[in-house]
Amino acid sequence: MKNSFNLPQNKKKRVVIIGAGFAGLKLARKLINSPFQVVVMDKQNFHQFQPLFYQVATSGIEPSSISFPVRKIFQKHSNLHFRQTELLNIDHEQKYVITSNGPLSYDYLVIATGVTTNYFGSDNLEKYGLPMKTTAEAINLRNRILSSFEKAILTDDADKQSKLMSVVVVGGGPTGVELSGAIAEMRRYVLPKDYPELDFSRMKIYLYEASDRLLNGMSVEAGNKALYFLKELGVEVHLKTPIVDYNGDKVSLPDNKVKYARNLLWTAGVKGRFINGIPNEFWMRSGRIKVDSFNQLEGLHNVYAIGDISCISDDTEFENGHPQVAQVAIQQADNLARNILKGNKKKFKYKDKGSLATIGRNMAVADLPGVKFSGVFAWFLWLFVHLMAIVGVKNRFFIFVNWAQSYFSRDQSLRVLIQPYIRKKSV
Amino acid sequence: MKNSFNLPQNKKKRVVIIGAGFAGLKLARKLINSPFQVVVMDKQNFHQFQPLFYQVATSGIEPSSISFPVRKIFQKHSNLHFRQTELLNIDHEQKYVITSNGPLSYDYLVIATGVTTNYFGSDNLEKYGLPMKTTAEAINLRNRILSSFEKAILTDDADKQSKLMSVVVVGGGPTGVELSGAIAEMRRYVLPKDYPELDFSRMKIYLYEASDRLLNGMSVEAGNKALYFLKELGVEVHLKTPIVDYNGDKVSLPDNKVKYARNLLWTAGVKGRFINGIPNEFWMRSGRIKVDSFNQLEGLHNVYAIGDISCISDDTEFENGHPQVAQVAIQQADNLARNILKGNKKKFKYKDKGSLATIGRNMAVADLPGVKFSGVFAWFLWLFVHLMAIVGVKNRFFIFVNWAQSYFSRDQSLRVLIQPYIRKKSV
Repeated sequence: MKNSFNLPQNKKKRVVIIGAGFAGLKLARKLINSPFQVVVMDKQNFHQFQPLFYQVATSGIEPSSISFPVRKIFQKHSNLHFRQTELLNIDHEQKYVITSNGPLSYDYLVIATGVTTNYFGSDNLEKYGLPMKTTAEAINLRNRILSSFEKAILTDDADKQSKLMSVVVVGGGPTGVELSGAIAEMRRYVLPKDYPELDFSRMKIYLYEASDRLLNGMSVEAGNKALYFLKELGVEVHLKTPIVDYNGDKVSLPDNKVKYARNLLWTAGVKGRFINGIPNEFWMRSGRIKVDSFNQLEGLHNVYAIGDISCISDDTEFENGHPQVAQVAIQQADNLARNILKGNKKKFKYKDKGSLATIGRNMAVADLPGVKFSGVFAWFLWLFVHLMAIVGVKNRFFIFVNWAQSYFSRDQSLRVLIQPYIRKKSV
Repeated sequence: MKNSFNLPQNKKKRVVIIGAGFAGLKLARKLINSPFQVVVMDKQNFHQFQPLFYQVATSGIEPSSISFPVRKIFQKHSNLHFRQTELLNIDHEQKYVITSNGPLSYDYLVIATGVTTNYFGSDNLEKYGLPMKTTAEAINLRNRILSSFEKAILTDDADKQSKLMSVVVVGGGPTGVELSGAIAEMRRYVLPKDYPELDFSRMKIYLYEASDRLLNGMSVEAGNKALYFLKELGVEVHLKTPIVDYNGDKVSLPDNKVKYARNLLWTAGVKGRFINGIPNEFWMRSGRIKVDSFNQLEGLHNVYAIGDISCISDDTEFENGHPQVAQVAIQQADNLARNILKGNKKKFKYKDKGSLATIGRNMAVADLPGVKFSGVFAWFLWLFVHLMAIVGVKNRFFIFVNWAQSYFSRDQSLRVLIQPYIRKKSV
């Protein structure tokens, strides 16, 4: 096989990691200075900190503050190599992957490709709904929200104005809750200052959740408290209300009810992307890959899956697989790294450090082992935990400054609507 | 005329300013709390600080650090109104402008639309050359440079590698000089750390200038010193060498010489965009609008042009019009504001505060009234002047931190390649 990846030719066994998210990056870092040649592949050249996408979408922080170039992380670690390319196919018998840049052989293959938005087969929602699973999508959300208001102020048609100003958020998980809360705070503190000519009683914020509660991954108390906080902020929360259809303008609801909004933010589901070459028997519900407690694809030689896309099927404690959250991804990477390095076989055991969700300033909910609480303290804990999790001292610092500024000024200065550059003949 | 702009209906005379660049924004700010209703229109919702585009393109600073939302500047000033819309046509007899959002009448019209890239009619250069006159174009440049290196490391074809790594900059003005200098510094300090597998002797940086010197707007000494600094940094500078053609891969030069590079950065010319409704006799070379010393379009009632697009034709000191720089734009806005406010007619007189250009760390040139110098001090002066010119305390602060970090670490952390979001059916 020709060396079209420009990797050092040596005797080292090669670990190929697909994906530079929480799982893939953690694993690579654990293998620094190991006897392995580690190749990380990703379609993007940076690690993105997904928990804060919603703040990019609501102009709270900078896209680059939650993005960190993988190469910078790998600098000075001669056994770590990053390649920006796309996985096309896996040949687990010949033990190589085929990428958009050609084939690469592996000794160990680790799939950490994460999940993407799941529209559950609805073409309309996929066509008109706005996803938020990548940095670019978060920026697109920011642009959509801002440009809707720029359009609203340019019409004197009241109906059109309220359609442009109103936002529908679908999905009562952490993302949906945090997003609708943040938008409600923009309505309260920021937007009226920017658009004094607009009547904000026309701006409705709806949150729709199909199940009977918010924050399904957390405690009932947390869900109820989140509901309370959102109502405080004036978000119209509708439980047990799945979206029937959306045409970019009209939201169709059960019992022939309808609502009108130009922006529908879809956070209601995720799925793993299908990967050619992984036998069918491994694919489970919503595109997760079935693995054993060592995160290995049983029967395939040295093929592993970790993070959101993986599903450990034989952990009786988690019958539907572990929650698809950063903590699980990081701990699985940790455990797999130890198994690969030591050659031993330690089962993955999830240590739930608890979970947090924020709704707005001084409004957060926390489920920690043995203690549940909410409000100001939970909020500061949320800020601290996320700040510490950010890659890069400067990113951490910039986010802190942005947060401090918005906290005290109840404003932010990132409402810039930078449309992507499209080459066109000038006039 | 229906009020499709949602402007307060009052007796105030209306000043419509087209463009929120240095000129337009300065004028608007000078009219704060004046007896006029001021409407600023721009295609973008933010003011962009053009002098630092080249640092965005070379991953030195954040796009948002040099972008500032116009609405935030106008907050709490009830006589200032921003509208994001595009100018289509001017009717100077009926005294209204037609925009993509419909017509708006004016009492005073000020054109401050600036200039765009001028390819001098070459379709190929327009098609394959990379411009840098907007924030989005600067981001696009950053993405192009970074992705070229990601591609280079994925091929073992030496020719293809050097084509991908090499950069051609066209135009020896401040932008071309600063851009090629910054890229040369990336080659020296940053890129080899990111791409240890690449042979950087294959990365060539060419700067082509048609005239016989660099920095034509500045002194001969400054031009010579810039040339010296660029050579220090290993930039191949070619004077008296106009580009003949470019096909995205091959640069055709005089005497049938050729060079190869995938990225050609075009900074060689600017022109004003044509505006329908401005009579032909006002249009001068490279799309500048002829105005008198009061920045007025002679014969049209209360129609003015300021900044880069304007050309004061009767100032004997500047026969080809004033230099198209921020200082002129700001001073013209200042003078026009006074004339409009006081109703008097003071001629515009340009006070040249001097000019600066930076080539690299500790390398800058300064022409100040009565004194010319270069080197470290000029460089710090450049940093200081630009930092102080930035809108927004936080932007200023973030840029300072970014600069300090790169200065001491000889590195930066903004090499993120965020591709624009394009809606597509997922697999």
